[in-house]
Amino acid sequence: MKFLHENFLLHNDTSREIYAGIGDLPIIDYHCHLDPAAIAQNSRFENITALWLGGDHYKWRLMRHAGVAESHITGDAPDAEKFAAFCATIEDLIGNPVYHWAHLELWRYFGFDGVISSENAAEIYAMCNTQIEREDFNVHGLLKKSRVEWLATTDDPADSLEHHKKIARESAPGVPKVLPTFRPGGVLEIEKEGFASYIMRLGEAAGIKISDWDSLRAALENRLNFFAEAGCIISDHSLEPPEFYAGYSELTDADADAVLKQALRGEKLDYLQKVIYKTMLLSWLGGEYHKRDWVMQLHMGVQRNNNSRMLRLVGADSGFDCMSDEGFSWTLAQILDDLEARDALPRTILYALNPTADDMLATMTGNFAGRGIRGRIQWGSAWWFNDNKSGMVKHLVTLANHGIVANFIGMLTDSRSFLSYPRHEYFRRILAAQLGKWVEDGEFPGDMSRLSKIAQNIAYFNAKNYF
Amino acid sequence: MKFLHENFLLHNDTSREIYAGIGDLPIIDYHCHLDPAAIAQNSRFENITALWLGGDHYKWRLMRHAGVAESHITGDAPDAEKFAAFCATIEDLIGNPVYHWAHLELWRYFGFDGVISSENAAEIYAMCNTQIEREDFNVHGLLKKSRVEWLATTDDPADSLEHHKKIARESAPGVPKVLPTFRPGGVLEIEKEGFASYIMRLGEAAGIKISDWDSLRAALENRLNFFAEAGCIISDHSLEPPEFYAGYSELTDADADAVLKQALRGEKLDYLQKVIYKTMLLSWLGGEYHKRDWVMQLHMGVQRNNNSRMLRLVGADSGFDCMSDEGFSWTLAQILDDLEARDALPRTILYALNPTADDMLATMTGNFAGRGIRGRIQWGSAWWFNDNKSGMVKHLVTLANHGIVANFIGMLTDSRSFLSYPRHEYFRRILAAQLGKWVEDGEFPGDMSRLSKIAQNIAYFNAKNYF
Amino acid sequence: MKFLHENFLLHNDTSREIYAGIGDLPIIDYHCHLDPAAIAQNSRFENITALWLGGDHYKWRLMRHAGVAESHITGDAPDAEKFAAFCATIEDLIGNPVYHWAHLELWRYFGFDGVISSENAAEIYAMCNTQIEREDFNVHGLLKKSRVEWLATTDDPADSLEHHKKIARESAPGVPKVLPTFRPGGVLEIEKEGFASYIMRLGEAAGIKISDWDSLRAALENRLNFFAEAGCIISDHSLEPPEFYAGYSELTDADADAVLKQALRGEKLDYLQKVIYKTMLLSWLGGEYHKRDWVMQLHMGVQRNNNSRMLRLVGADSGFDCMSDEGFSWTLAQILDDLEARDALPRTILYALNPTADDMLATMTGNFAGRGIRGRIQWGSAWWFNDNKSGMVKHLVTLANHGIVANFIGMLTDSRSFLSYPRHEYFRRILAAQLGKWVEDGEFPGDMSRLSKIAQNIAYFNAKNYF
Repeated sequence: MKFLHENFLLHNDTSREIYAGIGDLPIIDYHCHLDPAAIAQNSRFENITALWLGGDHYKWRLMRHAGVAESHITGDAPDAEKFAAFCATIEDLIGNPVYHWAHLELWRYFGFDGVISSENAAEIYAMCNTQIEREDFNVHGLLKKSRVEWLATTDDPADSLEHHKKIARESAPGVPKVLPTFRPGGVLEIEKEGFASYIMRLGEAAGIKISDWDSLRAALENRLNFFAEAGCIISDHSLEPPEFYAGYSELTDADADAVLKQALRGEKLDYLQKVIYKTMLLSWLGGEYHKRDWVMQLHMGVQRNNNSRMLRLVGADSGFDCMSDEGFSWTLAQILDDLEARDALPRTILYALNPTADDMLATMTGNFAGRGIRGRIQWGSAWWFNDNKSGMVKHLVTLANHGIVANFIGMLTDSRSFLSYPRHEYFRRILAAQLGKWVEDGEFPGDMSRLSKIAQNIAYFNAKNYF
Repeated sequence: MKFLHENFLLHNDTSREIYAGIGDLPIIDYHCHLDPAAIAQNSRFENITALWLGGDHYKWRLMRHAGVAESHITGDAPDAEKFAAFCATIEDLIGNPVYHWAHLELWRYFGFDGVISSENAAEIYAMCNTQIEREDFNVHGLLKKSRVEWLATTDDPADSLEHHKKIARESAPGVPKVLPTFRPGGVLEIEKEGFASYIMRLGEAAGIKISDWDSLRAALENRLNFFAEAGCIISDHSLEPPEFYAGYSELTDADADAVLKQALRGEKLDYLQKVIYKTMLLSWLGGEYHKRDWVMQLHMGVQRNNNSRMLRLVGADSGFDCMSDEGFSWTLAQILDDLEARDALPRTILYALNPTADDMLATMTGNFAGRGIRGRIQWGSAWWFNDNKSGMVKHLVTLANHGIVANFIGMLTDSRSFLSYPRHEYFRRILAAQLGKWVEDGEFPGDMSRLSKIAQNIAYFNAKNYF
Repeated sequence: MKFLHENFLLHNDTSREIYAGIGDLPIIDYHCHLDPAAIAQNSRFENITALWLGGDHYKWRLMRHAGVAESHITGDAPDAEKFAAFCATIEDLIGNPVYHWAHLELWRYFGFDGVISSENAAEIYAMCNTQIEREDFNVHGLLKKSRVEWLATTDDPADSLEHHKKIARESAPGVPKVLPTFRPGGVLEIEKEGFASYIMRLGEAAGIKISDWDSLRAALENRLNFFAEAGCIISDHSLEPPEFYAGYSELTDADADAVLKQALRGEKLDYLQKVIYKTMLLSWLGGEYHKRDWVMQLHMGVQRNNNSRMLRLVGADSGFDCMSDEGFSWTLAQILDDLEARDALPRTILYALNPTADDMLATMTGNFAGRGIRGRIQWGSAWWFNDNKSGMVKHLVTLANHGIVANFIGMLTDSRSFLSYPRHEYFRRILAAQLGKWVEDGEFPGDMSRLSKIAQNIAYFNAKNYF
């Protein structure tokens, strides 16, 4: 039997029947890092290495583990050699999600249903490159093949959104809608070098000179409205406690104003000052999202750029991040409670990178469920390092234990790659397998119409309705 | 096949044979929150909504997740509508323990073995209400049906225990013994508003005016003896580190005395002062429990009342608590070691709400095992949010990994509902399934007499002997 | 069927075929606590209690849980009674790894393939003791039976290594090579009573009077070289954050010098001073290991000697340790980054006792993977309390999720017992079962030559190549 086949991961009839009802649904990719410029320009790729390995830090990490030299990962080795190095790496990846993702990707986009190895690396390389020359392997073609209904990129408040506008203007048939996501990391990271110049850039984008807390908020309001006009309905934050929350009720706009001015003068801030600024800003932003009926995403538990040597040599987002084990249940509850108490809590998605937070987060959503809104606070999809089979199963089971898995808005790619949409297929297979397992184990009635509805909601309709 | 049937959750012969030997054993519910007044008065319930949904924050949380309006949860909507709202909610609860609990409850008490849904909500409502009118659906009848041998409620040291006394006096045949549990939360929570007036009330109950550390302990001794006379053999604490332990050896009674007096004067305490008082009081109480041969329960890892708006509107214990991710392994070890070093450590049950503490707690019990007492320190049953199938399995497997699962004192309900005893059935099925799985996987010999003894000990006899 | 048999834990053909290829490979036990004196002297044991229960705190803990009196654990009860007490304890150990280990040990060394129980305790005792009288049950005989290629003990820098030298000199055929491991705990634990006298002893061993930071490092260099000459290739640290790392870039040798001198004068150190000294010393040592191409082991997450009464009565390492829940992801990353940034990071193995660190550690290894070294940073084997079936499976699956399980250097015993080598068999069975499961579940192709190579690498060849 082929390694990949139509019943991959589906071990019983119930699972297969459930999957049959969701495998072909459209995709809503509400959180990704695709490059809007590439979509606007309908870019083409030089070869499979550029398309598949360029920018994919998941694969890079594994190649480093395998002992591949950096020249063949992010360096200047020939593309054919880089591809071969990856194929040699993958041979050993038993149990790793990239083994599955990579095979699904070559299968779904290139029709390759064999097993990738050192032996056939050159053959696959040639086969893929031949296809990549075709018109339908440009960005629009790939997105069409992926049946993406809409996707949300991740964008800076100072961004002109020119690419989004161009995509909307030219709306090619079959090409998904591309919405910007408001991610004001640069505004919050007051301790970073370059903060003052970033704020200047933000002010220019807004046409407002930012010199204090009031003008900052005025400029941000301008950008929020600008994003809304471009279709934005989602915001995104990387929340790194404990640098948030220090007793909302005792903080004032004047406190935030003083800290901001000090930072704009280039003076160093102490820990508490950073807390004050970030807390006040997130609190204010949350209310603005709520006003606009946006969804707020909070990503937690990342420890970034751990290898300073490689940060210097290769830059950020290159595979040198890991999970943090710092707790944040109290801080997070305070942030959400502050908004809820002011009737200003938007629908919110909570993500944590360290799965030790899974049960805690799943129960946290219950604290702010209510107001008659189904699935109001979401515990987001198994994220980044957790985006593997056992991680997804744990997410579904934990979510079901503590809440209503049928309300779950489902999968996202979080990806920089135009080939990563089979991750939705991967998720849907795992979802169908888990639902089927519950039924086959006698833990839920085998009512196919109910099961199909639950599966279809998680795979597609919940996201459609939530956003 | 019916959804519920005699082999629910039992997937092989060994499991079924083990379950056959424990399914009908009596129940010892050594920790619950049943209302002793309702038992003393042998209360009746108006309808299934009052009996089944009133006070059950597990169900409330799920209804909020499902988008049910608060009026239909804790508000003033008609009971039939509330019931219908819950039935609509349950349809989607695949994987959630409430799906199983609710079905087991309607099955065991009302003989309903169908599948709850929106469609049959009205029918079930009528069917249940007809039965509830019968004599055997009053509190005594429900407890008799549940085969409860004895249960322990949770009580304040200032309580008169009048209901417990009445129950003991009138001891109706088949009605379980009802023991009070000494839960001195109000005495420990020195930072709470109303502390001083609580202490006055405690003094009145004891007939001792409390003005300092000595008179506090005298009053508590009075109450400890009073509880003991009423049959109390268990205490209970919600332990919220780090507000405990600051170096026992360096703390003195004079320190505690000074803090207490300051609190009684209504003055604010700083963090360290709270630590001093709580540490000294728990340390002293532990010794008192040991003197009386009581069992001490320590509950850890809760983050309470996260939603201040709903706390104001609906009150505490309404479904707005979650897990805390704050560590406590060092603090807990210090508390236990202080008692053990003074030969004053009572038998103790450790519970944690966040399952990240599971392995740590299971190994913590080993630190203080010994003195020739079998199962001396217990890692308590999968608690509250963990009281689901995968949580219970994880608890059993983790306990077995790090200690002796055969010593486990087993299940409790921790419930406010008179219909929750099928949770013991749920636990027993999961227990039998896990024991059977070990055997069927070849990890333990299929010696049925040994297996039956282990299962019966966990289901009933260990608790009987431990308390 | 016998409880133990050739297919123990192997549930499908793929697993059995994989196991057939690794079951008989030699053992590399790169981390244990065997006594080099006993090996050098080729010690004999008086009876099975001395050989099997003496020094085994895993068994002692369980006996305490079972209610066995301390006299029959570490006390002076007759050996036959101690043995009987353990046999009574084991009857209940369903799900506990000691149940498997103990049976495997009696099977592999004594040919006993029955089930241990109270009933046959006396019979087993006699049967074992008869065999123990034979020549091949001395230490060399046991190690030969175990097919150990080499093993690494754990040794103090001040040690004379006389036993290691004797073993090397006399190298009996079939007796494994015995390498020392450099474990400078005594040098790092500056807060411990007796530090100054330890440092004097260290200086004597090195022939260098240690009076300051420079002479300390000179003495350590001497010992590092001395260990290297005796074949040492591995170091070992028990890392207890947060007493490490306080901003490397801001610490100087002069800071460390001042703290060391203060400690040598017997003066108390504050928290920050301890941090400075430990941080500077570990940082320097890491570079020394790297220079010598040694492997550095970091063990984390232990909370030791929790029961001060038993520490006094029975001493350390007697079964009163547990997991710590304190976080360390940031600290650990800083330590590793400091070394990596100086091009001084040795190959490193990270171990954590609390499995909550599993995913974090598995992703931490990726931060410092690279430099063309396959499997450069290892997440070490499921350690101590985690050395059970579900712990090992979780380790393998988590490792596979976040990295390359095929690179894993595999099992170690971490044991003080000459009978514990069947733990390698236990691990290999679990490994074969997991690899087989992935294949049978359709998650990896059933390519037996690839699978065999992966299994053999993990079981033996990766360790052989790594060290």
